[in-house]
Amino acid sequence: MLVPMIDLDAIPIETLLYGIALAGVAVNAASGVLEAGRRPFDLFGMVVVALAAALGGGSLRDVLLDRTVFWISDQVYLLTALLAGLATFALVRYMRLPARLFVLPDAVGLALFTVSGTQAALSVGAPWLVASLMGVVTGVFGGILRDLLCNQVPLIFNGELYATASWAGALLLLALSAAGVSAGWAALAGGSLVLLIRLAALRYRWCLPVFTARQ
Amino acid sequence: MLVPMIDLDAIPIETLLYGIALAGVAVNAASGVLEAGRRPFDLFGMVVVALAAALGGGSLRDVLLDRTVFWISDQVYLLTALLAGLATFALVRYMRLPARLFVLPDAVGLALFTVSGTQAALSVGAPWLVASLMGVVTGVFGGILRDLLCNQVPLIFNGELYATASWAGALLLLALSAAGVSAGWAALAGGSLVLLIRLAALRYRWCLPVFTARQ
Amino acid sequence: MLVPMIDLDAIPIETLLYGIALAGVAVNAASGVLEAGRRPFDLFGMVVVALAAALGGGSLRDVLLDRTVFWISDQVYLLTALLAGLATFALVRYMRLPARLFVLPDAVGLALFTVSGTQAALSVGAPWLVASLMGVVTGVFGGILRDLLCNQVPLIFNGELYATASWAGALLLLALSAAGVSAGWAALAGGSLVLLIRLAALRYRWCLPVFTARQ
Repeated sequence: MLVPMIDLDAIPIETLLYGIALAGVAVNAASGVLEAGRRPFDLFGMVVVALAAALGGGSLRDVLLDRTVFWISDQVYLLTALLAGLATFALVRYMRLPARLFVLPDAVGLALFTVSGTQAALSVGAPWLVASLMGVVTGVFGGILRDLLCNQVPLIFNGELYATASWAGALLLLALSAAGVSAGWAALAGGSLVLLIRLAALRYRWCLPVFTARQ
Repeated sequence: MLVPMIDLDAIPIETLLYGIALAGVAVNAASGVLEAGRRPFDLFGMVVVALAAALGGGSLRDVLLDRTVFWISDQVYLLTALLAGLATFALVRYMRLPARLFVLPDAVGLALFTVSGTQAALSVGAPWLVASLMGVVTGVFGGILRDLLCNQVPLIFNGELYATASWAGALLLLALSAAGVSAGWAALAGGSLVLLIRLAALRYRWCLPVFTARQ
Repeated sequence: MLVPMIDLDAIPIETLLYGIALAGVAVNAASGVLEAGRRPFDLFGMVVVALAAALGGGSLRDVLLDRTVFWISDQVYLLTALLAGLATFALVRYMRLPARLFVLPDAVGLALFTVSGTQAALSVGAPWLVASLMGVVTGVFGGILRDLLCNQVPLIFNGELYATASWAGALLLLALSAAGVSAGWAALAGGSLVLLIRLAALRYRWCLPVFTARQ
């Protein structure tokens, strides 16, 4: 992890968010292909699931915030999602990958999207509770869409601290920003917290209590 | 029912719609928790379903009408949905509630959302057929989303006059508005009709004929 | 096919797109009713599925492109979808229609929507890759929504060159437009290619290879 050694304050916030969003798009497209690959989808169905997973969360965030949808005017995002999806397809088709490989890009994608979603909402002046929810929406909606398209109950609804990790990171980012910390460091701290909670939850099987109503 | 005794003409239309929308958000969040509680969701999954049920219909309406999404700039809606969802969670967890309790808030939510959706569409100059559909969308889409997230065929597709009640109320509201009746009274009449049809349909098991194509 | 004998260059592009979109709305509403008719939905559920199939693709395109949603300001679209849906309902209820009748309107709808979606994206200056994806989205999203509402895995994910046909047609339209061909002829060529590939794929059972990841 060399990231903390880079002078985060010197990177313009636009450049930082752009890089974070591209990385998030790529790993989420990969997770979409891995999930769709467990179903009898054809190549195009798989591409649709990959695009939905990669672009769904940010699209919903932008539509709700009434911003220009991030991948419409700049086709680098779309190209990144397509290439990442096809590369994953090729890898999975010709190699036997360990099932656990899915876990890390998915957690990294959650962290990246939470950060970019929260900061995008802040940048249009959304109040803090809404901004934190936008971080969560950006982080988890792609995965919800991926699972709905595969016709299964979204994994995040009973998994290991998925949305919870996203929300905790978004709140940390917001608290640090409110305390005057620069955007780069706030993003790093918030994103790291998401990753930490999610990976620890997977490792130690932390789950929120499952709730079933008395009938 | 003390409502008719209040001088509805004296209440500014904005205040009226704000109160109606907040009440609709609260009861729909409660219905989301009650529905999600029948599945093995964790606390966060339940919150997601509650928010989707409470905010989904109005969000779709605002996105389609290209208005600012109602809960983005004013976080009172989001807080109301969260608190109503958590309160319902606490109630259901520690008390044995009769199953039928679900029915009344759901019908009231349908009536409130139909009214607020129709009037919001009118206020941006949508033609009447579109405005009535926006009332129905606002009324039923939260419930459709709730059911899709729980991976079941939406209840409204074969229930007791659900969307039909919503549409009838929206049309009555539009007719009264066109006839010069004030917004408050038109809202009360339209909302009451929704509630009346829905509750009567539940009581007497009125259903639209089920249609199955010859194969 | 008399269409090629009409002087396509003489028709204003707005008129052409309007007619194409209305025809697409009508056939997609019909396909929604035919699909919903295989489930125990009531009349209203069926109308909802018909409207979602007819208006869903174009709505998603317009929301993503931040245009005014096409059926909001002009209720002719909504009326067309409703009438086409109800007419199909009446036909299917009182006649025994061959199952294969579903295939042609669905393919024509795909072609029409692909063309109108691609040209709408071009008209707001979207880059070509985004414009071609918008053609596909407009063409296939209504069908995805229809299938999700019926709680089944979208047919397009493992059918006979559905989205592929749409994408090929969108790319041809874009190439011809870039080469200076008029909008009318580019639309005709692109739409015909969609129809040709889709019908040939159905006839000869061309499918993309189905991909299943090694577990």
